[in-house]
Amino acid sequence: MKKIVKNGIIVTASDTFEADILIEGEQISTIGKGFLPSEGTEIIDADGCYVFPGGVDPHTHLDMPFGGTVTKDDFVSGTTAAAFGGTTTIVDFCLTEKGKPLKNAINTWHNKSEGKAAIDYSFHLMIGEINEDVLAELPSMIEAEGITSFKVFMAYKNVFQADDATLFQTLIKAKELGALVMVHAENGDVIDYLTKEALANGQTDPIYHALTRPVEAEGEATGRACQLTSLAGSQLYVVHVSCEEAVKQIESARRAGADIWGETCPQYLALDQDELRKPDFEGAKYVWSPPLREKKHQDVLWNALRTGALQTIGSDQCSFDFIGQKDLGKDDFTKIPNGGPMIEDRMSILYSEGVAEGRISLNQFVDLTSTRAAKLFGLYPKKGSISIGADADLVIFDPFAERVISSETHQMKVDYNAFEGKQIKGVVRTVLSKGKVIIQDNVYKGTEGDGVFIKRAKYGEELRNTALERV
Amino acid sequence: MKKIVKNGIIVTASDTFEADILIEGEQISTIGKGFLPSEGTEIIDADGCYVFPGGVDPHTHLDMPFGGTVTKDDFVSGTTAAAFGGTTTIVDFCLTEKGKPLKNAINTWHNKSEGKAAIDYSFHLMIGEINEDVLAELPSMIEAEGITSFKVFMAYKNVFQADDATLFQTLIKAKELGALVMVHAENGDVIDYLTKEALANGQTDPIYHALTRPVEAEGEATGRACQLTSLAGSQLYVVHVSCEEAVKQIESARRAGADIWGETCPQYLALDQDELRKPDFEGAKYVWSPPLREKKHQDVLWNALRTGALQTIGSDQCSFDFIGQKDLGKDDFTKIPNGGPMIEDRMSILYSEGVAEGRISLNQFVDLTSTRAAKLFGLYPKKGSISIGADADLVIFDPFAERVISSETHQMKVDYNAFEGKQIKGVVRTVLSKGKVIIQDNVYKGTEGDGVFIKRAKYGEELRNTALERV
Amino acid sequence: MKKIVKNGIIVTASDTFEADILIEGEQISTIGKGFLPSEGTEIIDADGCYVFPGGVDPHTHLDMPFGGTVTKDDFVSGTTAAAFGGTTTIVDFCLTEKGKPLKNAINTWHNKSEGKAAIDYSFHLMIGEINEDVLAELPSMIEAEGITSFKVFMAYKNVFQADDATLFQTLIKAKELGALVMVHAENGDVIDYLTKEALANGQTDPIYHALTRPVEAEGEATGRACQLTSLAGSQLYVVHVSCEEAVKQIESARRAGADIWGETCPQYLALDQDELRKPDFEGAKYVWSPPLREKKHQDVLWNALRTGALQTIGSDQCSFDFIGQKDLGKDDFTKIPNGGPMIEDRMSILYSEGVAEGRISLNQFVDLTSTRAAKLFGLYPKKGSISIGADADLVIFDPFAERVISSETHQMKVDYNAFEGKQIKGVVRTVLSKGKVIIQDNVYKGTEGDGVFIKRAKYGEELRNTALERV
Amino acid sequence: MKKIVKNGIIVTASDTFEADILIEGEQISTIGKGFLPSEGTEIIDADGCYVFPGGVDPHTHLDMPFGGTVTKDDFVSGTTAAAFGGTTTIVDFCLTEKGKPLKNAINTWHNKSEGKAAIDYSFHLMIGEINEDVLAELPSMIEAEGITSFKVFMAYKNVFQADDATLFQTLIKAKELGALVMVHAENGDVIDYLTKEALANGQTDPIYHALTRPVEAEGEATGRACQLTSLAGSQLYVVHVSCEEAVKQIESARRAGADIWGETCPQYLALDQDELRKPDFEGAKYVWSPPLREKKHQDVLWNALRTGALQTIGSDQCSFDFIGQKDLGKDDFTKIPNGGPMIEDRMSILYSEGVAEGRISLNQFVDLTSTRAAKLFGLYPKKGSISIGADADLVIFDPFAERVISSETHQMKVDYNAFEGKQIKGVVRTVLSKGKVIIQDNVYKGTEGDGVFIKRAKYGEELRNTALERV
Repeated sequence: MKKIVKNGIIVTASDTFEADILIEGEQISTIGKGFLPSEGTEIIDADGCYVFPGGVDPHTHLDMPFGGTVTKDDFVSGTTAAAFGGTTTIVDFCLTEKGKPLKNAINTWHNKSEGKAAIDYSFHLMIGEINEDVLAELPSMIEAEGITSFKVFMAYKNVFQADDATLFQTLIKAKELGALVMVHAENGDVIDYLTKEALANGQTDPIYHALTRPVEAEGEATGRACQLTSLAGSQLYVVHVSCEEAVKQIESARRAGADIWGETCPQYLALDQDELRKPDFEGAKYVWSPPLREKKHQDVLWNALRTGALQTIGSDQCSFDFIGQKDLGKDDFTKIPNGGPMIEDRMSILYSEGVAEGRISLNQFVDLTSTRAAKLFGLYPKKGSISIGADADLVIFDPFAERVISSETHQMKVDYNAFEGKQIKGVVRTVLSKGKVIIQDNVYKGTEGDGVFIKRAKYGEELRNTALERV
Repeated sequence: MKKIVKNGIIVTASDTFEADILIEGEQISTIGKGFLPSEGTEIIDADGCYVFPGGVDPHTHLDMPFGGTVTKDDFVSGTTAAAFGGTTTIVDFCLTEKGKPLKNAINTWHNKSEGKAAIDYSFHLMIGEINEDVLAELPSMIEAEGITSFKVFMAYKNVFQADDATLFQTLIKAKELGALVMVHAENGDVIDYLTKEALANGQTDPIYHALTRPVEAEGEATGRACQLTSLAGSQLYVVHVSCEEAVKQIESARRAGADIWGETCPQYLALDQDELRKPDFEGAKYVWSPPLREKKHQDVLWNALRTGALQTIGSDQCSFDFIGQKDLGKDDFTKIPNGGPMIEDRMSILYSEGVAEGRISLNQFVDLTSTRAAKLFGLYPKKGSISIGADADLVIFDPFAERVISSETHQMKVDYNAFEGKQIKGVVRTVLSKGKVIIQDNVYKGTEGDGVFIKRAKYGEELRNTALERV
Repeated sequence: MKKIVKNGIIVTASDTFEADILIEGEQISTIGKGFLPSEGTEIIDADGCYVFPGGVDPHTHLDMPFGGTVTKDDFVSGTTAAAFGGTTTIVDFCLTEKGKPLKNAINTWHNKSEGKAAIDYSFHLMIGEINEDVLAELPSMIEAEGITSFKVFMAYKNVFQADDATLFQTLIKAKELGALVMVHAENGDVIDYLTKEALANGQTDPIYHALTRPVEAEGEATGRACQLTSLAGSQLYVVHVSCEEAVKQIESARRAGADIWGETCPQYLALDQDELRKPDFEGAKYVWSPPLREKKHQDVLWNALRTGALQTIGSDQCSFDFIGQKDLGKDDFTKIPNGGPMIEDRMSILYSEGVAEGRISLNQFVDLTSTRAAKLFGLYPKKGSISIGADADLVIFDPFAERVISSETHQMKVDYNAFEGKQIKGVVRTVLSKGKVIIQDNVYKGTEGDGVFIKRAKYGEELRNTALERV
Repeated sequence: MKKIVKNGIIVTASDTFEADILIEGEQISTIGKGFLPSEGTEIIDADGCYVFPGGVDPHTHLDMPFGGTVTKDDFVSGTTAAAFGGTTTIVDFCLTEKGKPLKNAINTWHNKSEGKAAIDYSFHLMIGEINEDVLAELPSMIEAEGITSFKVFMAYKNVFQADDATLFQTLIKAKELGALVMVHAENGDVIDYLTKEALANGQTDPIYHALTRPVEAEGEATGRACQLTSLAGSQLYVVHVSCEEAVKQIESARRAGADIWGETCPQYLALDQDELRKPDFEGAKYVWSPPLREKKHQDVLWNALRTGALQTIGSDQCSFDFIGQKDLGKDDFTKIPNGGPMIEDRMSILYSEGVAEGRISLNQFVDLTSTRAAKLFGLYPKKGSISIGADADLVIFDPFAERVISSETHQMKVDYNAFEGKQIKGVVRTVLSKGKVIIQDNVYKGTEGDGVFIKRAKYGEELRNTALERV
């Protein structure tokens, strides 16, 4: 059956224009004005609304074990919440275990997700060590599994943290194989020491989570990762950049010619460190790593988005209930599970604080929340694009409506929202995934398992001038 | 009559996809696959080709008096040559005279261009002084004339050069009125001194043109203009950036939050200072201001395009015959008319050296040569866009064909080409302006006067979230 | 007659040690411990005190006409006050007039000073224009007059301001002749505009003096002067650096290899912009150009002194009475004579805020207030040094005593002190100029005319390895 | 017995003047002109010569085991050679072993040195791990042993390399105790990988030593150490800085207020990477870590010395015979013992290439080779100073004489000299250590054991204003 999205203002990463979109099957087939609906064509009204490509969230942790508990949102609730927020593709982090085949981890993640997701999804692969077995298995990750991005942690000492040798070899291997290396860039050794010192001094409140993860620890690790990337002649994507110190390192490396990209998250753009000082342990709701920073960093991050020094927005979705999970750290901030619920409001925050406040343009909004991530992670042009042949993943967005964020009404399974009470400009009206309406006026219309795993293309296809060969 | 551009790969500033384009009248009405041509629809074949939005050249000097002579290309030959190269809109510099109404200059430029152009065009307005009369006349330039960009020269002492007071006030006024200030950023005082010194030392050859205009003079002036812009809270566009010193200043100002843009030109990307040392006065063919630089600057400029530190490509078209014009400076390099023919090959050079060499992506190519300039100078979405309702200004471009640049075959009226003999990847097959084929397989199909003057929107419309109000 | 300064801690720009100093005639002849006083040797007690080389103030304006009035302190009161503060040499600015021989100005300044000064002095020469006459006269300034530093103003439009052509030629000529070029680095055009705007808006209070001379105007001009210096391959000394923006430019140029030096003043280190907001026109007492800055700049300046990014401390002495002079600007801040009384407390402030607060070392204090300026301006080793053969210009300084600054007790002729009421650590006990005690326990023991004009060596003698030839 | 050093030009870190020096016992007692020699006073002629304070070499490895062999020069030959070159104090690195008491290592080093040295000496203490035992023992190192500097290696994986946790804790502890932390800043993980890769590719020649230790590895580690220092609020001294990348990091950290110092070595100032390409394995003579760099880095290092971005010159003396030691790596560059003989010519190279070439001043030469290191490492004012009460460690240096460096004539025990055949301006005539002539006209006049171990003051005494309390 055909559908027409009618009378909207289509917004791509570069263009803005009024037109209708004809969908045939799962793809967009035609864009234009004044189609006569052929019989049986379903009309989806977008009058007075923008039509964005569905969001691509390159950074989620669903159904993930962490610190003796498991994230509240799994691939059912997490992807459904994402859809409510206008996101139609996610890339989740597949955690590996040292000494075990990578394939095991992939299987575990397929088991977590298969038949459950509301929207399409893929996986990044964590690399915790490099040895002969890992080296032998890596090519199949890319060629057979379609997993073309590797994640290395420079923090979480004695848990996820890899040493420089591992990072450097991952970079070299990624270059050879066509993968993009992602880093969590904080100096884990420094944080480990400061954390123990704080506890030894009886500093157990949530604010000490922030104070023991200083901006220098992130700036240093970011600079280190950039230098290693330059040296390896490889490619890097720095996740969840939170502060000026890290932005500067990325800018400097890009200026020197390095192939480096940076992501930030809504929490760093719109919340600040003082949230962790809230009384009654409420600060625990705001425990992310890297932590929220002093307010002055927000301007730096916004300017980095405006000028292109940072290129994507991830949610770093990693949700834990305040009651029953976050409170594991009631007497010891190091036991607070890190992370928060953000998959649902990622695009809303960026629109409301970014576009509506005049900090970024509409086209930048689309690039930041969708197109750029699709390109970097080998999902484009299937995802991230309103163009002929692309998946009909569309968001119909009313910029004049407003709403209030609240855990009372949000779709995520967690019992709080870090933006509780925040007035937001712009409301998602309708979301289509592969031509199917899955959200309509705040009602979920889809089915578990609508979303499937997507094998991704290698890194850098976009720049290699293969457009003509591709089609 | 309707037309269909068929089977091409459409490339926008963000997307790449295979589709047909239906043109009704002067605009694009539909984009999709497999249209059945209704009777009488003309089919324009784009098979195996890219389809780009027609180029927007934000920097031309046609029919311009300079140093006792006049540029060889006028609005007839200049715009025709532009069209051959895939450019479908230009913005030319309207020179003003001190003490005379701005309107006089506008009229002069309208007289030069009306009924002559092959493609649409607009004007930038030179500001040489600020006084009560100028201040009184400026609002009408924007509101009535649709001229929303002002050019200030920091070089050409005693000719065009304005002092800092003029530049600063222009910036302040532009902010108030909604115009973009453009600067030629070289320190004219320094150049004037070095020039006189060189002549006094008998250094009269073309190479001294470059040696008396050092990179520091450009870096300094660029930094000064950036600082004044920040202070004024205004907006700036630095034309023809040629060297690392200038790029650094622009990057630094943008990093600090300033609203500053930079343009470079094909000559700085692909030619270097050694050209000016060619024997038999041949160096005179390569006399631009700023001059060609040492080869190492090319990498810096390409990287600036890649990372977004510079955003547009202008031709700085300003052509003079080698015999009869350039040779005015045979015995004195200061008498060589500055500038060269570049309007025709601007896009070719950028494609061949940029995209085909893997330095920039296809989408960046489109943004750099067309979309970004259209947005900055108030021509968007009419120009610079392949989208519904946009002017059907289209370039059908064969990336697999090759050609050789030569003054024997170029369309410009000048007797030489700075890229003589250069092998170029990619060939323009067909060019449409407002739905009319004006170039087909290297034959001009248009008529003098096809192109008309376009009044432009104010600066910054794109960022102000008026998309919905606009349509 | 011989004298011995006994039991002090001698502090030089590099060393600190306990010893006695034997003075024969005007010079230091021996340094050591336990001299037996030969009969008739005068003992000057320095027990419990530091012994510093007498200060060298490289930046004073005595008996200078400005804005329709004349500085309150002339060569009598100014040099006497300097001596009270431990300064035993000054270099004053000799203002020239366009169109008149430089020699006239020199004569005027000799007339102002001859037979009047309490301490030795020299002159810098202002360059307001470069033409054939000036070029012809410059060599004699250096060779015959012993004036080896030229001052160029980038601010004070239509008064002192020189254009870039003048600055650039002065730099080139200075390099050739062996002089050091000094700049007042603020963009006069910008300030002129902002000033007029402020007045047009009825903003007449002293604070607008600061608000119309923004840090960007100083940063820009400083960067410009640095670039021109690099290009000329010449040498530069930036006077009264007040802000981070200027410091950064100097650091950057030095890092790139330029021969550039920077001076700051006590007022910028220890006062801030809020002083200008004092009620009842009191802010006028704090009107300097460049203006006092926001407090955060103080840390940057101190760090620049610590790391060597700035190298000297000038007073920029330029005193006007609050009643009768400053109040010329009661209704119009542009009529407030710029400048303040600082010649007397220059060293005190630096010691109390710098050494006593642990920001700089004792040896840095000596270098900053005396030795470095003596070297840069061709006064060394006669001045700025406690060494054999140097002039016995010595300050015996009690670091444990304290005093309070007040116009009631200061020696300058002005009716206010910008540091009124400030508690200061460290007190000058005794000052010797050329072996003669001129200050003892706050009593002046000298005679008008003790101080004479000193012809100075060319710039750069120190670096040229001529030490052995010199002696 | 008294001695007089007569008619020399005394050069300190700030002053230059002609005077005689009277020595009583081991110390300088008087400086002046025209002393009448009392009966029995020995006259040491310095006519036509400079008199410098004896050099302080803060970086030597004598009698040190490395890679299965031991450095050729021990405390006998090494300190004697140092004396020949004008160095009268060294600080050697005491290597510790994990799991063993620090005191053991100290004892070992005392055993190596006691009764053997020609000149005074002290030790730095290597920190390879931090644990309860180390933490318990550290205070006594400072208080009882007088060892106030700790060395941490960021390179030499699986040998000396410490992780960031160790470095960070050492910094924190050093701050608390009053010690200066020294780092060898190269990323050992990166180097380890590149080294293995090179060997796997059959790249075994000496040049691969340089190519597997890229500048990025040094820049990165330097930046990391600087960031950790800032975060710890501690103090850092970066040894053997070899390249622009590292200099930039140090400059940047100092500019931000950090208490960080940098040392470079003669080899990096005057030799370059091409030396390692010499045929017949000769390149092995030039194997240092960090390696020699491309020639362009030399200008950066010289400029850093000139502007104060680097503050000291160490020799990194670590000598191995070409035949019998260096050739352990004939078939595998990783087996070439790292280091070279430099203790003897450290000051010569700096004078000849620095002062005689006009790159630094005489006073800077003294500061760089002697005074600054004495101050940083708690040896001042006993060492590093020509002042009353200082040890009479003096070098009489003829700047007009010349000599040629050669292993035929050098005093070190090794069979080659990296500067073989180099013509040097300036010759050491006489060296006094504690008032005793130990070198006279190239003849050693001293006795084994003249030199004794010196306990050093804590870091930062100089800045703390304790000069008066001290004496």
